[in-house]
Amino acid sequence: MAQVSKNNGEGPDKRVWMTYGGCVYDVTDFIGNHPGGSHKILLAAGGPIEPHWHDLPQRYMEKMLIGELHPSDQEKVDEIMDKLSEESDPYENEPTRSPLLKVHNETPMNAEVPADILNSQYITPVSEFYIRHHHPVPLLSKEQEEAFRLDVDLSLLSGQKQTAKLSLAQIKSLPKVEVTSTLQCSGNRRSGFNDLRETSGTPWSQGAISTAKWGGARLVDVLMLASEQLAIEQEPAEGVYCTSKSHSISSLPETLQNVQRLLDQHPNLQHIRFESLDGMLSSIDVGKALSPFGDVIIAYEMNDGILNREHGYPLRVIVPGYAAVRSPKWVSRLELAEEEAEGAWHRGLNYKILPPSVHNASEVDLEQMPGLSEVSVFSGITKVSRVVEASGDAVQRLVPGETVLVKASGWAWAGGGRNIVRVDVTGNNGKTWESTNITHGFNQPYGRAWAWVFWECPSIPATVCEDGISVELCCKGVDKAFNTQPESSDGMWNVRGLGNNSWFRLRHKVV
Amino acid sequence: MAQVSKNNGEGPDKRVWMTYGGCVYDVTDFIGNHPGGSHKILLAAGGPIEPHWHDLPQRYMEKMLIGELHPSDQEKVDEIMDKLSEESDPYENEPTRSPLLKVHNETPMNAEVPADILNSQYITPVSEFYIRHHHPVPLLSKEQEEAFRLDVDLSLLSGQKQTAKLSLAQIKSLPKVEVTSTLQCSGNRRSGFNDLRETSGTPWSQGAISTAKWGGARLVDVLMLASEQLAIEQEPAEGVYCTSKSHSISSLPETLQNVQRLLDQHPNLQHIRFESLDGMLSSIDVGKALSPFGDVIIAYEMNDGILNREHGYPLRVIVPGYAAVRSPKWVSRLELAEEEAEGAWHRGLNYKILPPSVHNASEVDLEQMPGLSEVSVFSGITKVSRVVEASGDAVQRLVPGETVLVKASGWAWAGGGRNIVRVDVTGNNGKTWESTNITHGFNQPYGRAWAWVFWECPSIPATVCEDGISVELCCKGVDKAFNTQPESSDGMWNVRGLGNNSWFRLRHKVV
Repeated sequence: MAQVSKNNGEGPDKRVWMTYGGCVYDVTDFIGNHPGGSHKILLAAGGPIEPHWHDLPQRYMEKMLIGELHPSDQEKVDEIMDKLSEESDPYENEPTRSPLLKVHNETPMNAEVPADILNSQYITPVSEFYIRHHHPVPLLSKEQEEAFRLDVDLSLLSGQKQTAKLSLAQIKSLPKVEVTSTLQCSGNRRSGFNDLRETSGTPWSQGAISTAKWGGARLVDVLMLASEQLAIEQEPAEGVYCTSKSHSISSLPETLQNVQRLLDQHPNLQHIRFESLDGMLSSIDVGKALSPFGDVIIAYEMNDGILNREHGYPLRVIVPGYAAVRSPKWVSRLELAEEEAEGAWHRGLNYKILPPSVHNASEVDLEQMPGLSEVSVFSGITKVSRVVEASGDAVQRLVPGETVLVKASGWAWAGGGRNIVRVDVTGNNGKTWESTNITHGFNQPYGRAWAWVFWECPSIPATVCEDGISVELCCKGVDKAFNTQPESSDGMWNVRGLGNNSWFRLRHKVV
Repeated sequence: MAQVSKNNGEGPDKRVWMTYGGCVYDVTDFIGNHPGGSHKILLAAGGPIEPHWHDLPQRYMEKMLIGELHPSDQEKVDEIMDKLSEESDPYENEPTRSPLLKVHNETPMNAEVPADILNSQYITPVSEFYIRHHHPVPLLSKEQEEAFRLDVDLSLLSGQKQTAKLSLAQIKSLPKVEVTSTLQCSGNRRSGFNDLRETSGTPWSQGAISTAKWGGARLVDVLMLASEQLAIEQEPAEGVYCTSKSHSISSLPETLQNVQRLLDQHPNLQHIRFESLDGMLSSIDVGKALSPFGDVIIAYEMNDGILNREHGYPLRVIVPGYAAVRSPKWVSRLELAEEEAEGAWHRGLNYKILPPSVHNASEVDLEQMPGLSEVSVFSGITKVSRVVEASGDAVQRLVPGETVLVKASGWAWAGGGRNIVRVDVTGNNGKTWESTNITHGFNQPYGRAWAWVFWECPSIPATVCEDGISVELCCKGVDKAFNTQPESSDGMWNVRGLGNNSWFRLRHKVV
């Protein structure tokens, strides 16, 4: 171990060794390629990997094996690990949370916004924004914060390894853009499927959705900054003959300004991959990422304040109009890529909507099914009350089948920037529909309506149910492409319980 | 009239006079502003307007009144008009049409593709492409063809009247782009609404949809060419002091390459308007028009041949993924604009989907309702047959309620470039769904899937109907945003009968 510790990247030959399970590896050439980012792998430079990670990719490791650790040194490592596992709780540094949220799971935290406060403010307060984590919330020490760099891997453009490292200050020096965007968990309203047939995942009601004003730098500007940094570093010495610059990093700012040319020159540029401090892997298609109308940002602010740990400090990707899983928190690495992200969240079952005929996911070829990106049209009802006449007859007994008047309010949202043009509501299972008034969010830019609308309807004829005391309301939103919500969940049930956007149904007591 | 005829724009002072209804107008200053394009208004230069148009906008005309025509001259005009109205049939020059099309209306021609040939070829042959006209098909004389120019009005950028005139040869000199795109009439499947409640418009079945390979120049390239032409014409003479070029036409090529900058500099640029030789007015939002991922072209080819008169010769706009009304044929004028197109087709009821609660369009404020742009997800079944076992038992009598196996095929398509990820089909009204095989069109670029898919399903359990001889199949498509088709048309009925994308239902005899 004494010998290993000298190879910590700071010696004269800059080699980096690490140990794992009694073996010694020279990882020097791998550092730039590490999917978790080089700053992360360097945490273990000159020492044991165990305290930092488990589940190493064996196919990479074998090539880097250079020797064995002395057994007594490995025993010391094992002792440290035993002690750590006794002492440490990976969730011991979770942020404090609002008691208003309805918690489905503590570790990782999954919590939704209860219906009674979901619509209380158009911009959800930070403390009441729904939480859907896959891992513990990363905690950076003061030193780690200072050392934090966003790795931007542009290797695809030149065919050579080229990763820029951008500091927070550099990213904040770019023009700040503000985007008010709704985020929704892909499993929102999953509980509605479970009545039909069991699905896997958190049984969200309608509250896995919230809206914030995000502030940050345009993704395109971040890529341009990264390419400028690399171009300066790699400028050929004077007198060196430069064969062609047409595919070099230094031409990126120019081609990014002209996205059409970039695509023509690099037809293999199809995805932008994201990697996060918690290990999350995700990606989006280049059409969304680079469109001047896509509004994708690398955010460092939320609701005018510094983005907090819970929601992604120091940096979070915001991909408006896409399922929230494509807006990863704690992002530490961007990569221009030919293929979508590796990993369960993009290629696995987790975020894929299978056909209703499939009850066993192993029956299908997941590669033929796209992962979630844009969101379909959703809506919900959060408040209902009876319209009481002056005579105060609301307390009378009601006869099943008779009609009473109620008022209701709620929300609606569609992905892809598709404006909500209308929300319809019915109190008689669709026999007649009432148009609602959009009270908030109506005037969003055409095709860039990234945030929800709020609606209210002052008078809905509703049929009294068999029980004589309640009515059932349904609502459906309509987006600018005139997509609407299907009547029932039956035809859209899927193993993972994703994308349940059937008519929102709410039974409500009116007596 | 002799005096009028001298003011035909070719005199020394270039004044242009015209007469209408006994009055004489000096229209010189109006020519550049004419919504029909200046080449069109000049047809009447130095003579009577009557043979060319009726329904002149009075608010414009009053300001230009300069005198009265001698009564005997007006009598001559009236005689000409009487003769013209006796002789001329505006529909006398219609193209020859395929007898395979199912004609709903002759003047103007509205004809759909019968189900039995709708899916026979992925690229619809030109002669079998559905036809939906609003007016007679324009016929250009040899001279008119040679004189034809596409007017491109860029006045919005500089605040001064600036219209470039591009010849066909100039447009064809731009890089040719090919886009395979489906077009669908917004009223496709309207007949399904009429069973519920009467709507206005052609009672299309499922055949007001077709797919072609369109060839032409990118809209963005046409705008750049126009700006270059104007910049050259208006280059200041040497020594002339030029205050600022930041908002001038000459900076357009540069800013169009960088759309973000163009939008920052010209926030009032919101729409691109189109005007056609037949008087059609239409527009699209700037996000679709200028996005490098929008694939909007000015087409002059269809299925590798010259675009024919029926489908828009000499030029047609193709706006992939939008309702076909936004892809106007015979386009003669483009204009950068702050507001969407004037006219019934954009702002009127014609292409607006009202709520199902509205039975009388005068009840609503049409300005609050967007015109159609992107299309929702649609699908159809075109062929069904019973799966006959070797024993040949298909001819037996069937018992209502029993299950027989059928196979079926059809099409599906979604607007906005949203790929069809799946088509489901059921023979028992949705109790169980079968996944279908996509046979054509599956591998379109992500988010730029402008054309339909074909699907087939080899084995669908179908319940025999009450009549003992037929089954009812339904299908629904699912797009990449996991929008799907609603079960019934009830909740989407609208006065104009647009956008009927409920489950496609087909009753089919199996005995």
